[in-house]
Order: sequence, then structure tokens, then C-alpha cells
Amino acid sequence: MKAAIIAVGDELVLGQTVDTNSAWLSARLVAVGIMPTYHLTVADDLDAIAGAIVAASAKAGLVVVTGGLGPTKDDLTRDAIAKALDTGMELHVPSLERIEAFFRRVGRPMSDSNRLQAMCPVGAKMLDNDCGTAPGIEARFEPARVFALPGVPVATASMFERHILPSLSGRPGRVIRTGVLRTFGAGESTIGQMLGDLMKRDRNPVVGTTVSGGVVGVRIRSDFPSADLADAAMAETEALVRESLGDFVYGRGEETLQDAVAGLLKRVGRKVVTAESCTGGLLSKFLTDVPGASEFFSGGWVCYSNRLKVEQLGVRGESLAEHGAVSEAVALEMAAGAIERSGADYALALTGIAGPGGGTPQKPVGTVWIALACAAGAGGGGMPRAKAALFMFPWTRELVRDRAAKTALNILRLELLRSAAG
Amino acid sequence: MKAAIIAVGDELVLGQTVDTNSAWLSARLVAVGIMPTYHLTVADDLDAIAGAIVAASAKAGLVVVTGGLGPTKDDLTRDAIAKALDTGMELHVPSLERIEAFFRRVGRPMSDSNRLQAMCPVGAKMLDNDCGTAPGIEARFEPARVFALPGVPVATASMFERHILPSLSGRPGRVIRTGVLRTFGAGESTIGQMLGDLMKRDRNPVVGTTVSGGVVGVRIRSDFPSADLADAAMAETEALVRESLGDFVYGRGEETLQDAVAGLLKRVGRKVVTAESCTGGLLSKFLTDVPGASEFFSGGWVCYSNRLKVEQLGVRGESLAEHGAVSEAVALEMAAGAIERSGADYALALTGIAGPGGGTPQKPVGTVWIALACAAGAGGGGMPRAKAALFMFPWTRELVRDRAAKTALNILRLELLRSAAG
Repeated sequence: MKAAIIAVGDELVLGQTVDTNSAWLSARLVAVGIMPTYHLTVADDLDAIAGAIVAASAKAGLVVVTGGLGPTKDDLTRDAIAKALDTGMELHVPSLERIEAFFRRVGRPMSDSNRLQAMCPVGAKMLDNDCGTAPGIEARFEPARVFALPGVPVATASMFERHILPSLSGRPGRVIRTGVLRTFGAGESTIGQMLGDLMKRDRNPVVGTTVSGGVVGVRIRSDFPSADLADAAMAETEALVRESLGDFVYGRGEETLQDAVAGLLKRVGRKVVTAESCTGGLLSKFLTDVPGASEFFSGGWVCYSNRLKVEQLGVRGESLAEHGAVSEAVALEMAAGAIERSGADYALALTGIAGPGGGTPQKPVGTVWIALACAAGAGGGGMPRAKAALFMFPWTRELVRDRAAKTALNILRLELLRSAAG
Repeated sequence: MKAAIIAVGDELVLGQTVDTNSAWLSARLVAVGIMPTYHLTVADDLDAIAGAIVAASAKAGLVVVTGGLGPTKDDLTRDAIAKALDTGMELHVPSLERIEAFFRRVGRPMSDSNRLQAMCPVGAKMLDNDCGTAPGIEARFEPARVFALPGVPVATASMFERHILPSLSGRPGRVIRTGVLRTFGAGESTIGQMLGDLMKRDRNPVVGTTVSGGVVGVRIRSDFPSADLADAAMAETEALVRESLGDFVYGRGEETLQDAVAGLLKRVGRKVVTAESCTGGLLSKFLTDVPGASEFFSGGWVCYSNRLKVEQLGVRGESLAEHGAVSEAVALEMAAGAIERSGADYALALTGIAGPGGGTPQKPVGTVWIALACAAGAGGGGMPRAKAALFMFPWTRELVRDRAAKTALNILRLELLRSAAG
């Protein structure tokens, strides 16, 4: 089946807001074997919306419209569906009751304009919304099915999953399963080479890669006549991918590197601290993205000035004078100082040149030393240990900092995997 | 004049990549008085692209196409323009020479497929690209003008500014100037009320607001018969907006709150340190987003555990026991401890409940105490000073942390403004 995606809103057409719903919906549809053929974005204009719906339903079996279901005068998707169906509107009492209940729950008065959101084009079906007041609408433009969803991304996603996805059988008699494994530490082309024949286009399950923020995702789509077959093939391919990629795989689904590190630390009841220079707090920000971070993260130091490196972390003045702030010796001393002062089990330290200024021929922008120190007893060793490695991230300030912090997380992840195995 | 925006690429239609070019181009066009009427995204399909161009040029005076100009077999925008013009292709020698020079410069061999990028639809014009190998194309579909640009966002932007913008006269004999002032600390509706009649839709210059990440932007567009008149009206309206909004305005253009704070600190040669709990390093990450941050930022502490608050910042155990970690006393002691240990002029401290867990009826999720301490001498005062304020950010973990860190930056900004005025 083919699909067309329509986004409605002046703020989209005028470029005040980037439309992320169309890409999100498309990716979800592709995952179940439905191919989007185009995306169209139109303004809050009755004729433009109605025209877009009529044209799309002539070209595609499934049309998904987002936006234009709010309570204000410029929300016209309801009216446009009625116009396209050449019909009128009627009050949908269960939707009105749901909207009234919503306002009672949040303790705010309901305005008359919200009553408009309970109006349904005659012959269409209302779809209840658990994220806000705007119901969605399902209408038939035979043979096409048209769904209209609110444009707020969380509501779009939630209502797609609840109201549209279960009704998409895909090809009759086929069951589709999808999943994604997340990797860090190798580029997309290296991952592709390691996957080899697993990435052949005619394979089922089919395996593909996408990259975002340094993380390479390995997507798997399994398409079989029964759920049992699809699930079994999915599990088998996932195992083959994991076997090919080893420790590059850190998680699945929407899992982040910090989620993976948090899970490993919590499993062994250990804590980490950070000592950051060039990343300026980004590493500890990543770690505290995880809810309940206090269970595995004690805190950290952002020692931008040399004075703070010496006074707060015990970095030696001679190390700074002899090797400079961006050096193996200083990275190791920052990590050791952080362990000593916190009593934590692990410390990650970073010192580098984020740019755009400050680079030299010997230490160009993007040079970053990352150290990991382990307290006595952490990871099963009896003696405290530390190691440092040099990385080059020859990019923009933002990317240098992002990749350096993620690389530090990955170094700790690999250490935790090794000590769990050892 | 009306415009239509077309984005080309399988990765866009299939939802693997979010199209940001169309919004960016639309915002730039709106700024010079040209109204986009729709965005269309199509796959790498010759007929789909050609059909989209023909349909768009019948509806809009300006059509901008992005993507499909690369060197591979699935880059079909060149051929689609030729097909839409019902013409053939010819080699454009200056483009070929430019592509050859590009490969010499980067020291890589040029493949035959790059030669394809120098092919021009007969009757069209090539637009040189200073960000890569793909030239753009300008073609006439009378009366419409069609521009095709590469889809890599930096190239799209650079080529729009160089090749399209200068040729957009808007209405003949009119000069348009645009600008934006950035505000923080008040919601969009409050800013709107303060602006009052300045926001009347028939005013020239016209004034509008948009909100993103807690920052309300006030956009001004001035449209007059001469540059002198447009500039003078722009300056006058900007002054009226600043007068209406006072210190809520922190900057203009793309300036961030941290840029504004950095500028104020550098002007007086002062430094700040941070002491963070709930924001977990985000505040110091924001400050170090600014290149050359070491000039005004010494570093900071992320004291997630109570132990680090006590041992590293000198927070008193009695304060923690009596008031809890999320309290005025602890925020003030964190800020004072950070000043004392760093010798910095200012310290910002945050302690709060970012959620989703950890809230209580007395201290619900979103409760954040923010303290500012000033060293003796900072801001002209003879004695060290400190103050703290309680904020409620009743949102998600991510938003609580973002708004708390930005609010802390804003508190320091207002202090620096006051001490500069005093």
C-alpha cells in the first residue's frame, strides 16, 4: 500500500517550525511495509487542506494528515474534511464529554472554542486523544482511508500507535517485526563491512544502517506469513548482527550510551564521577539525563582553569608546566584526583581543545585526552588502575565536545563489560 | 510574490532524515516579503520531480528545489528539469573545471560520476557551489523562476544567500529589512501584552513573536520605498520594542543567553563559577558553548550526592538535615562555597528536583532553588553578597533542567546589568 502525508499549519509553511511529524510517520509506515510517496505541507487554509486531501486520496490508499485540529479559528482540518466529503458537521457527544473531563482534571475552565473540537464531519469517526483535547478523525474516501491527527508531536505519535498502526494489516497474511540495535565506536562504513552479507537487499529479515550523532543504528525488518516465523527470524538475525559487531553494540531501540552505562553501573552497584575540561559539563549532563542518576553518579568537577585543576583535583603544577593542560599526565591526574576526592569507583576525565581557537600544530583543534581511573576493588582488581588515550575529533566545537563526551561514556562501558566478563 | 518549496530525496520521503531546508528557506523568503504557499517532498523519481516542478511553476512565481544534484545514479533533479523543460543536457565547461579544481584541492581522484554534475539542461543556467561539487541550476518556466540547490543544508543556505536572495527584489521599488530581538524571563503572551499596539498587523514595520526553548523572539520587518527609510523605521521600531520590554531583551539575531552573559562578564573582566545539582552540568555546558569561555568561566562543581556537597563545597550537614538538599540554605551554601574555593567573582548554584521521580507534596517535581553569590568587590559592592530564589518548572526532566539552567544565566545577566548601571 502507498501512503501520502499531509502537514497543516501556517507556522510550518512560513518556516517558523520544522515539521518532524511527517518524517516520524513515514519511518513508522516504512517499518510496517507501507511506502510513503510524498509529503505535502499546506497553510491553515480551508481550500488548500481540502484540495490536498482529495488529491492525496486519489493517489494513495492511506492518507495521514497532522495539525489543524486545535480549538482556534485557524484550525480548519475538521472543516476541510467535511468540505472534501461534501458533508456537514455534527456534535460528537463522547468527544465533548472527554474534553469536559480533561478540563475538570486540570482544573481550568473550558472555553466555547474547545466545544468546536467535538464537532465531527458527518460520516467520519472520531479518535480519542489521551494527550490533549483534540480528537482525531478517520474518514473514508473510497478506496482510500484518511486519518487526521493533532500536530503536537507527542499526540501525533501516541494516536498513530493507538488508532492507525493496529488497523494497518500491511499485505494480507504477512506479519512484520522491526527493531534497531545501537552501536558506538565505529563508523557506518566499518559497521557495513562487518555486517557483510547480512546487509544484502534481498535478505529477509532485511538489515540496514543509519547514523545520527555518532551512533550507528542497525535496523532489522522481518516480514513473514506468521508472527512465530517473523519473531524467530528477527531473533536469529539480531543474534547474527550481535555476533558480527561484538561490543560495538551497546543497546537497542531508543537506548542511549548513558542508558547503557547507567544499566551496567547499577548492575554492579558502582558509582562514577567526572572531571571535565574541554567538554565543560557535557559528560555529567549526559549521565544525569538518566532519571535516578544519583544511584550511579556522585558528581563531577568542571575544571576549565588550571588553577581549579590544581586546587580542586590535585593536578601537579609540574605536569601542567611540562606537558600542558591537554596531555596524558594531566588527564590521568584529573581522574585520579576525582576518585580520591569522591570515593567513587570510577572516574572519567577529559582535557582537550574544543576550538575554534587554541589549536597548535602539535595539538590541533579536536585533540582530546580521555582518562579512566578505577578505584581499588572496582572491577575486581585489587589495585587502583588508570589509563588514558588520545583522540582526534577534527570538527566543530559542538561536535568535538559531543563526540568526546560520548567516547568517554563508551570507554567506561567497555571497561564495565570487561570486568563483568573477567 | 508567492513561492513553492520542493525537497527531493528518498531519505526524506521514507522518514530517515527530517527536512530542515524547506523551513529554513521559507523563513528566509518570508523575511523578504515572499510568501511560501506549500512545501512538497518527493522521492528520487524522475517523473515525480519533473511533475512537481511543472505543477509548482504554474502556481508560484518562485520555485526552490533542494536535493537530487549529487553525483550518483539516484540524483535526478538535473534530468527532471530537462524533462520538465522538454530539452536535452549539455556539458557546462566552467562547472567541470570548478569540480576538477575541487578534487585537486582536496587531493582525491575525481570519478566519472562527478562529471555528470557539470551537465546542464539546455537553456538553464548553472550556479556555482563553494561548499561542494554540485552546482545549482536556475531555469525559467515563464513567468516562474525555478532554482535547484544541493540538499546539504550548509550548501543550500550558502547558495540561497549568494544566488537567489540578491535576485529577489520583492515588489519593485521596495526595500525590506528584518531583524529579531531575543527575550527571556516572560512568556509569549506577556511579551505580546507589553508590546501592545506595536503588534498591530497593519503596522509598518510589522512586529511578531515566536517562542523556542523558553526564549521569546520579537521579529521586526520593515518595508519601505528606500533603504534609508527602511533602516530608519527599523531602528525606531527596535527602540520602541526595547523601551516596552526593558531588561527582558537580552540580545538580537542568533544570540543566546550564554552569549549575552559572556559579553557582560568580559566587559567588566569578571569570572563566574557554577555549583550544580539538578542541572547536572548543563549550566556549565551552556557557558562553555561560547568559544573562548576560559576568559569568563573558571569551572564548576556537579555535586549530585550530598557527600560531595559537604566535602567539596562546604555545605553544612545541619543545613542538609534540617532543610533538605533542595532548599534555600543549601543553594546559598553551595554558591558561597564555590566562590570561596575558586576565587571567582560570581557563583551560580542550583538545587532542585528534575523528576520524574523524587517529588513530594511539599517539593514537587520542578522545584528548583537558584542562588547567586557575588565576591567582595564584584559589582561594586564592598561586601560579599548572596541571594536565592525559588522557581517552579512543572514539566519533563529535560525541560526542568533546560529552563533552570537558562533562568540561572538570566539571574546573572540581570545582576551584571544592575551593577553596570549602579
